[in-house]
Amino acid sequence: MNSRVPDIDIRVVDKMVEAALDEDIGYCDLTTEAVVSPDRRAVGNFVAESAGTICGLVVAERVFALVDDSVVFEPLVSDGDQVSKGDVFARVTGSARSILKAERVSLNFLQHMSGIATLTRTAVEKVRSFGTIVTDTRKTMPGLRALQKYAVRCGGGRNHRFGLFDGVLIKDNHIAVAGSIAAAVEAARSRVPHTVRIEVEAETRSQVEEALEAGADIIMLDNMSLDDMAEMVKLIGGRALVEASGGITCDRLPAVAAIGVDIISMGCLTHSSASLDLSLDIRLCETTNE
Amino acid sequence: MNSRVPDIDIRVVDKMVEAALDEDIGYCDLTTEAVVSPDRRAVGNFVAESAGTICGLVVAERVFALVDDSVVFEPLVSDGDQVSKGDVFARVTGSARSILKAERVSLNFLQHMSGIATLTRTAVEKVRSFGTIVTDTRKTMPGLRALQKYAVRCGGGRNHRFGLFDGVLIKDNHIAVAGSIAAAVEAARSRVPHTVRIEVEAETRSQVEEALEAGADIIMLDNMSLDDMAEMVKLIGGRALVEASGGITCDRLPAVAAIGVDIISMGCLTHSSASLDLSLDIRLCETTNE
Amino acid sequence: MNSRVPDIDIRVVDKMVEAALDEDIGYCDLTTEAVVSPDRRAVGNFVAESAGTICGLVVAERVFALVDDSVVFEPLVSDGDQVSKGDVFARVTGSARSILKAERVSLNFLQHMSGIATLTRTAVEKVRSFGTIVTDTRKTMPGLRALQKYAVRCGGGRNHRFGLFDGVLIKDNHIAVAGSIAAAVEAARSRVPHTVRIEVEAETRSQVEEALEAGADIIMLDNMSLDDMAEMVKLIGGRALVEASGGITCDRLPAVAAIGVDIISMGCLTHSSASLDLSLDIRLCETTNE
Amino acid sequence: MNSRVPDIDIRVVDKMVEAALDEDIGYCDLTTEAVVSPDRRAVGNFVAESAGTICGLVVAERVFALVDDSVVFEPLVSDGDQVSKGDVFARVTGSARSILKAERVSLNFLQHMSGIATLTRTAVEKVRSFGTIVTDTRKTMPGLRALQKYAVRCGGGRNHRFGLFDGVLIKDNHIAVAGSIAAAVEAARSRVPHTVRIEVEAETRSQVEEALEAGADIIMLDNMSLDDMAEMVKLIGGRALVEASGGITCDRLPAVAAIGVDIISMGCLTHSSASLDLSLDIRLCETTNE
Amino acid sequence: MNSRVPDIDIRVVDKMVEAALDEDIGYCDLTTEAVVSPDRRAVGNFVAESAGTICGLVVAERVFALVDDSVVFEPLVSDGDQVSKGDVFARVTGSARSILKAERVSLNFLQHMSGIATLTRTAVEKVRSFGTIVTDTRKTMPGLRALQKYAVRCGGGRNHRFGLFDGVLIKDNHIAVAGSIAAAVEAARSRVPHTVRIEVEAETRSQVEEALEAGADIIMLDNMSLDDMAEMVKLIGGRALVEASGGITCDRLPAVAAIGVDIISMGCLTHSSASLDLSLDIRLCETTNE
Amino acid sequence: MNSRVPDIDIRVVDKMVEAALDEDIGYCDLTTEAVVSPDRRAVGNFVAESAGTICGLVVAERVFALVDDSVVFEPLVSDGDQVSKGDVFARVTGSARSILKAERVSLNFLQHMSGIATLTRTAVEKVRSFGTIVTDTRKTMPGLRALQKYAVRCGGGRNHRFGLFDGVLIKDNHIAVAGSIAAAVEAARSRVPHTVRIEVEAETRSQVEEALEAGADIIMLDNMSLDDMAEMVKLIGGRALVEASGGITCDRLPAVAAIGVDIISMGCLTHSSASLDLSLDIRLCETTNE
Repeated sequence: MNSRVPDIDIRVVDKMVEAALDEDIGYCDLTTEAVVSPDRRAVGNFVAESAGTICGLVVAERVFALVDDSVVFEPLVSDGDQVSKGDVFARVTGSARSILKAERVSLNFLQHMSGIATLTRTAVEKVRSFGTIVTDTRKTMPGLRALQKYAVRCGGGRNHRFGLFDGVLIKDNHIAVAGSIAAAVEAARSRVPHTVRIEVEAETRSQVEEALEAGADIIMLDNMSLDDMAEMVKLIGGRALVEASGGITCDRLPAVAAIGVDIISMGCLTHSSASLDLSLDIRLCETTNE
Repeated sequence: MNSRVPDIDIRVVDKMVEAALDEDIGYCDLTTEAVVSPDRRAVGNFVAESAGTICGLVVAERVFALVDDSVVFEPLVSDGDQVSKGDVFARVTGSARSILKAERVSLNFLQHMSGIATLTRTAVEKVRSFGTIVTDTRKTMPGLRALQKYAVRCGGGRNHRFGLFDGVLIKDNHIAVAGSIAAAVEAARSRVPHTVRIEVEAETRSQVEEALEAGADIIMLDNMSLDDMAEMVKLIGGRALVEASGGITCDRLPAVAAIGVDIISMGCLTHSSASLDLSLDIRLCETTNE
Repeated sequence: MNSRVPDIDIRVVDKMVEAALDEDIGYCDLTTEAVVSPDRRAVGNFVAESAGTICGLVVAERVFALVDDSVVFEPLVSDGDQVSKGDVFARVTGSARSILKAERVSLNFLQHMSGIATLTRTAVEKVRSFGTIVTDTRKTMPGLRALQKYAVRCGGGRNHRFGLFDGVLIKDNHIAVAGSIAAAVEAARSRVPHTVRIEVEAETRSQVEEALEAGADIIMLDNMSLDDMAEMVKLIGGRALVEASGGITCDRLPAVAAIGVDIISMGCLTHSSASLDLSLDIRLCETTNE
Repeated sequence: MNSRVPDIDIRVVDKMVEAALDEDIGYCDLTTEAVVSPDRRAVGNFVAESAGTICGLVVAERVFALVDDSVVFEPLVSDGDQVSKGDVFARVTGSARSILKAERVSLNFLQHMSGIATLTRTAVEKVRSFGTIVTDTRKTMPGLRALQKYAVRCGGGRNHRFGLFDGVLIKDNHIAVAGSIAAAVEAARSRVPHTVRIEVEAETRSQVEEALEAGADIIMLDNMSLDDMAEMVKLIGGRALVEASGGITCDRLPAVAAIGVDIISMGCLTHSSASLDLSLDIRLCETTNE
Repeated sequence: MNSRVPDIDIRVVDKMVEAALDEDIGYCDLTTEAVVSPDRRAVGNFVAESAGTICGLVVAERVFALVDDSVVFEPLVSDGDQVSKGDVFARVTGSARSILKAERVSLNFLQHMSGIATLTRTAVEKVRSFGTIVTDTRKTMPGLRALQKYAVRCGGGRNHRFGLFDGVLIKDNHIAVAGSIAAAVEAARSRVPHTVRIEVEAETRSQVEEALEAGADIIMLDNMSLDDMAEMVKLIGGRALVEASGGITCDRLPAVAAIGVDIISMGCLTHSSASLDLSLDIRLCETTNE
Repeated sequence: MNSRVPDIDIRVVDKMVEAALDEDIGYCDLTTEAVVSPDRRAVGNFVAESAGTICGLVVAERVFALVDDSVVFEPLVSDGDQVSKGDVFARVTGSARSILKAERVSLNFLQHMSGIATLTRTAVEKVRSFGTIVTDTRKTMPGLRALQKYAVRCGGGRNHRFGLFDGVLIKDNHIAVAGSIAAAVEAARSRVPHTVRIEVEAETRSQVEEALEAGADIIMLDNMSLDDMAEMVKLIGGRALVEASGGITCDRLPAVAAIGVDIISMGCLTHSSASLDLSLDIRLCETTNE
């Protein structure tokens, strides 16, 4: 097993799989019930129809298990591995009714998660030579965040804070309420767990200066030009982590990374990725299971 | 109120909103708790940063209601309406803590759903002169199908079957099990509710002929060339509804529609749409609510 | 295995079984905890106390599995099979505590579902020579619809639409809103999935004529006399499926079927069936499992 | 308000209503969405199509509230009240879409619960002159027990133990395990809460004698003949409560009650009652709500 | 297996375990994912750091099973058994990631439940010579009642009523509403299940007299002095069970028991017990599982 | 409103309140249903029976709202405020049935949470002059963590990481797997979100030195003597935050704080606090609500 495979809690996976099965299968699969005898067996090969980074095997396994725990799902690669067009990357064996019922849901998870992992891998490769960290954001598909962030990790990216509960990001509205960046940072420092870093979003040089003085651990440069970002990286000079954010596409990545920011966060990884083209090739077994 | 606004059950909405709030807020918003006093009030304007079709107001309203039922959410357009860049399409008023907590989740729903509605609208416009129906598929984001299909309806598209439980689609594997298209259609006809039409997926002329003879109500032409599809439309001659499917992009739409198919189903509407760029502009009220 | 056994999704079954166990067992079985040692084992035979159609084995199996997955449940017939008085139709082996805890809930499911299947079988037999389809309605026990409709299928009946989401039935109120049957059918045709047939409820000859003209796929003759129904069947003449509905009891079935309607829908199958008399005969094993 | 109206916890009601709405409405009502404009309003009268005891108003109110909390549900009688054929017993006002969506589910609850209350009332009347208590059993529709037992109370009956967790009933299997009735009663007495009475099921005179000696609080005479029951009542002579059980129909009630038993428990109240015929007469308002 | 081990329903356990895992693990264990390879295996010994009564093994087993069903949990004693300082009372073997993830939650359950069982055992020992029953109350940790009451049983105590639904306790407010103790007892007697005893809370001699006359099955002496309780025990003279309640600490137990009350109920068992000091000693296996 | 009142998400509160009501009320309150007419009204005063820090008003409000949303709950102080013996700190008005049903659950939350807040306040006061931060740990009551940690904040304490997902704490087992502290810190640094600080648990001087060299953000001194801790504080010299942990009771607090550690974490705040003595004094209104 690949020791670098990220982890995701099985109960989190199961909740999302249950929701997906509920909406797709409901009380029964009309076509399969009518046409396929319960004792018919089948084998299915998951095939990559394009090259990319596979992600979601851990989820697909649970899809089949929750539909019918006698179906055997056998991954042939690990989440995060690269596949070429035509590669068979997983195999499933068991009741034909169950495999047909679970087909679409398993593919929906795999295609979406592999789409994110593939896009992340592309982004990470573009900045690898600079050692820049690529992270996601909170701009995720509602209800799918844990899987999307897992896909980012599988693609070689890193996660930003998961939600509002595990990180502090002081934005303009917080600053307006507090009266100043210093006051906002001080308020956060005196109330949130000491295990969490304080990040401040800055749009101008003076905000960056204030944030530095206030002792911010991370400064996010929001929607700045390359030149402005370059100036800020110099100004900060290692006294805080520097994160670039705001509409950064894959094309712009190398230029931003070259400036020397520590982190680039990209919303598009999770809100606008295309799905990777994958298919399940099912063959019915000649004989029944009796 | 626009009498053509589609309907979606509020309990279905609430389940998805709850899941999204659970993952984003968890037990509390660290930054807001630390920095924003509970009696501070704010007003937020939802702004379109690009032109498109708005969708998800019915969901955003529930996001705020479930975070804090004293917040007032006021839609200024209806789901399905067009907006131009810069338009304010909804307004929210209430506790600043609550608005800040709900901001990201409400935008995530609105941006994703509006992205689908906008793409659907584009597709529908391309075939309007032909009277062709554009539908979605079951290739949806797991757990979000009801909202995605609602967005397709708001964009002027139509829904295909919702899942496995409310429609019959006989594919190659079903045919293989049954022995023939005739046998598969007969099995379905004799077992599924009489309220449901029988659809058969066909890849060749002989399959189309068999499906016609078997009395299929709908014939799906799967991944056929334009010429083949044109031939099949003639062959079928109105004896069944004709659905074109398989990798049909917006660019190919007019050519496919011109052939005279009744329905074109497009997976990309829901599995690969980009989000529409929307923002929430929050202003804090000077005075508190006391 | 009987290849005609209907299918029901296990997750749907489990939700109902969980609810039933929650209400019956709560936090523990006082009597069993006090009197029966945890290592005591037992065997139970499910016995038919009257003849009928067995239904619910797939559910009873889950009842025992969810109480204690080490209990072995062995069905001796399939759902939908006929049993005579005195027949042993299933056997359960395992911890005495677990079998005693699950006894009542398993019987409650089996007796209710077998009652429905038996009544349905009776109805189906009465119209077999006419080839008429017998279906259920939406007049079901709240929360138990999927199991009740499965029982109807096991008894040889067919299902009507499952709910409001998978079929269209235009009734008087819809017609009143739309202005006419034609307008209502047109509205439905232009908005609902193309996979669904349009059914219109008609109480008079003129309504039947309007429905035919509007192109309704199915016409429901609601609470009509035998004579009126006969006249309507002739009028329709195969241009739409004809469904008879409204207070049709088993006694009236042959007369209605003889008229030549395609479908007879009966609410009594699910809202007023009596339970079939079944029992669980438990014998304690002499020796413990050690 | 009738001070004798029984109580039922609203959260228990809501869980069952949610399950019923989930299965009936799913993601939307196809017909209503297509045909009825969202701003159309209606009024509905609930009408008794036969005489009986109304039950389930508290549930119907929640059905409408959970579908659309702007709908007003106004009960005109209380649960447990008698109605005559033709009586209007409740009224509902609001959005036509919402009322049409909730119609069937509200009727399904009301018809089933009123059926039970009506049957219970009949049973109670038959033994009123003897002062005998009529109770239900655990032979209930899975998942609906709390509502069914509430309906029994509304019909003037009393509840037996709710489930396995709130009462002790020592049956033949428990006796076999314990070795004797005395041992079983002693085991229960020494372990279960002191707030619970100990009941023993007896099929023979010697078992009744043993139960008395063991200090059972309640003795259930199971499936005994009238003569045997009469003898047992004399033998017990007030030293324990006497409960008659086992296939006692309404017809046999007076004879059993005349013997002097304290309690008669009847499974048929909840497992085989017919629904009461009720309807909802909906009229659309001429003008919209604008 | 100890035949006196109490029973608790596994589904009740699982709901609490799920809630505890949800709050502790969330979507993943950051430290373990980063540092521990998925194929690393470990063995853990649960060690008693102080002497006491072990309770919660049945829960800890489910904690590991729900995190990873390939982990083997092996209890070395039974719930309710005594351990000495240093005793290893359970062992767990499997994936190091899984054991580390489940460690804290399993200990939190075991330490809290063992704390209650140990305190209960102490209380029970203090009154053993008098044959007095020690029970808990409804003053429990919200959401944990079933586990806390199981721990009381494991410590040799008995349970009072579980909640409001399975016992009757008439307090001053009920008496005030009813007008008199006699009226309140009569109202309860005529409406609640015959399987439940009627308990009355009394603070004065005249209330005790009234309760006796009304035929109360149990009389609770609330917050009385020792002398007053002694007088009441004599007055009651076996005509009702006598329960002492109200701020009775372990120190006061023998004196109260000596008076001859039947039952002493103690809120402190569940609302203020200290946790028992337990630890999990984890050793990593040298070789991986390949 | 006190602007320093911590925040807790209402949906988190509601889940715990639902669980508590489910276990206490079940399907109904037997005593109240039997004795109290539905139209009877009451007023209740929440009274402090001892001095302390009130916590849980935000929860109690939801308890009453979820039982009956017509009950009015009026807090007279804010969570975190001090009360003296005899103070009335909240008032509730409405249906007597509803208030009686919700009484125990509301008190169970308030007493437990106020117990924690009071203990925390005591601890915080003991170290106030040193400016030391007092935090909780993950040794919490299963399922109640969010409320317990809120209570710690209300008592003036701070929260440590919430769970495994929002903080990194490298312990001996992680170090053993990684091979060294340096390797473990490096693994964490390269994989977890950059928004999270890295904490290392150290038991010896050499571990502290290694952790410093590895760049740990926080060093936890685990179960060290006062002298050793003092030495480590000097050694660290501000290069990392210093946290003292392991069996630190209120008595030892000042001595530990005097050494100059930044943070002291205390498990006893949440796993072994006693409940604060509070009561609800209910008076029935003379007249009904009609």
